Amino acid sequence: MTQTNTQVIFKSRPEGWVSEDNFDIRQSELPALEDGDVLVRNIYMSVDPYMRGRMMDRQSYVPGFQIGEVLSGGAVGQVEQSKNSKFSEGDFVTSMNLGWEQFTRVPGGAMLMPVDPSMAPLSYYLGVLGMPGMTAYVGLLDIGEPKEGETVLVSAASGAVGQIVGQIAKLKGCHVVGSAGADDKVAFITDELGFDSGFNYKTVESLGKALGEHCPKGIDVFFDNVGGAMLDAVLARINVRARLVECGMISQYNLTKPEGIHNLIAMVGNRAKMQGFIVSDHFDRLPAFIAEMSGWLRDGTVKYREDIMMGVENAPAAFVRMLKGENFGKQVVQIGDDPARA
Amino acid sequence: MTQTNTQVIFKSRPEGWVSEDNFDIRQSELPALEDGDVLVRNIYMSVDPYMRGRMMDRQSYVPGFQIGEVLSGGAVGQVEQSKNSKFSEGDFVTSMNLGWEQFTRVPGGAMLMPVDPSMAPLSYYLGVLGMPGMTAYVGLLDIGEPKEGETVLVSAASGAVGQIVGQIAKLKGCHVVGSAGADDKVAFITDELGFDSGFNYKTVESLGKALGEHCPKGIDVFFDNVGGAMLDAVLARINVRARLVECGMISQYNLTKPEGIHNLIAMVGNRAKMQGFIVSDHFDRLPAFIAEMSGWLRDGTVKYREDIMMGVENAPAAFVRMLKGENFGKQVVQIGDDPARA
Repeated sequence: MTQTNTQVIFKSRPEGWVSEDNFDIRQSELPALEDGDVLVRNIYMSVDPYMRGRMMDRQSYVPGFQIGEVLSGGAVGQVEQSKNSKFSEGDFVTSMNLGWEQFTRVPGGAMLMPVDPSMAPLSYYLGVLGMPGMTAYVGLLDIGEPKEGETVLVSAASGAVGQIVGQIAKLKGCHVVGSAGADDKVAFITDELGFDSGFNYKTVESLGKALGEHCPKGIDVFFDNVGGAMLDAVLARINVRARLVECGMISQYNLTKPEGIHNLIAMVGNRAKMQGFIVSDHFDRLPAFIAEMSGWLRDGTVKYREDIMMGVENAPAAFVRMLKGENFGKQVVQIGDDPARA
Repeated sequence: MTQTNTQVIFKSRPEGWVSEDNFDIRQSELPALEDGDVLVRNIYMSVDPYMRGRMMDRQSYVPGFQIGEVLSGGAVGQVEQSKNSKFSEGDFVTSMNLGWEQFTRVPGGAMLMPVDPSMAPLSYYLGVLGMPGMTAYVGLLDIGEPKEGETVLVSAASGAVGQIVGQIAKLKGCHVVGSAGADDKVAFITDELGFDSGFNYKTVESLGKALGEHCPKGIDVFFDNVGGAMLDAVLARINVRARLVECGMISQYNLTKPEGIHNLIAMVGNRAKMQGFIVSDHFDRLPAFIAEMSGWLRDGTVKYREDIMMGVENAPAAFVRMLKGENFGKQVVQIGDDPARA
């Protein structure tokens, strides 16, 4: 019996809300390897908000997805075959350039990094020990620069990045407030993760009133994952020298015309700083991040929640539900057996 | 004959556009001095955009104007009487806390600084050698951090701050573009001040198209005096690691609801920084500013244009025309005789 490769194909560019109709599932043969190549059996793949941007036909900091081709992204897997002396069959590896597919051929083994399954569950390398965790770490510490006693607000607070941001801010002695889109998520960040308070942005009477109640001393650092109306409400309540860390604006990614932000004038009088960032600009901080974060995980200081969906054919559904905020914790798709967890 | 004091009184808070009806003119007696006080005869007073914010009933970085009281602001004058050993009759002085009036009593001589009429015309201490010049200097150099060869765009480019920003940016080897609201202002910044190019934002087909033509390599530094639609158009054309220096948003000050900004998403992918600032936070830079700027003025490297209106009773009209952009160069009101110019 020949092993086939189930792949998710980018079928059409979404206009407005992305849907499963924008994707196709295809069965292919396993690719043949050339000298230096590595074939990775993907075990977990990540769906991330930034991928929505790659579905647009425009220049950006990551190349766009091409119609008719397999989508790519971060995954963790195991070396299935190797024609590269640096990698052996059975090695656990990760990369940002694996695929929405069961098997990915990696030419020259480029950008593959080994991972240690004894340090943490493999899927954690897509989250708390991977790109989202690093995003939280450098975004909060290097751009937000939180100081003891300051109020730190994080949106999408139970998500892949938000849950880590809030816990690091607590470690730095801040008053930490989170917003999320469901009551059980709010309970999770306060009861399980130790945020000082949180609110459900979908059910509060108004965002401004909620921010007034939960951030009575104003907002010093806003770690922004959502943009839109939340950002506007935050601007009306920032403190002098506030830092707005612009990690993402997920509320805007599926709109054909973005919402208007009306309160930017608050930036001037408050001498506030708003700064966008891309985690890949900060790889010099990777060793510090890995050292600190693995320590925090080991001793239980930092907790981490995932939402794992089964089957590569469900990757489009997982991607859409993540953009809609229906996931609870970091959204991951399990593609194949995990021998480290079994 | 007793000398009287013509004063401008804040009569009512403007809703939307400020008008001369929001002010009253009053004749008062000269104030009596107590020990330590100084009476200043104001010669030139400044009208500045930030004063519009002081007319609102809200907390801010400067105290609001109170209804029924004399307005205050920056002025240059001459000591008329002194009960303070640090000041003598005839001394030329300046302060940010003088008044919209012919004579101001300065309790204890607080915040009065001597000025040297042999170094520059007295009115220059309200502009190129004063708060607007210092604003241009620290905003561009310390926050904008322009590098040789970068494109610097400045809005309100012929105004008090804008004309200085553009000239300093040229000194730093940048490609400098200005926007202004009249063809003669555009001719002034390019022909007289040496900007590389400029455009009339009121008559271009679209702001986006104009920015594309005048900033073909994108925008690295935006020195923003206006906010609103120009800021939105700029965001659509910023380069990676662009710096947006938020000095003011004059286009919004007389709106009851500010315009919406739709392109903030560009901040994320471009890792851009937007930063508000207040010149009074940067007084540590005053000696460097005075030394450099007075040198540039002396050798003709930096040019400077003023728009002087006569008579303290015309201060409200000068303020309104400045907010409407009808001035050409830094708007100043001459209140009394200038013995240094005569």
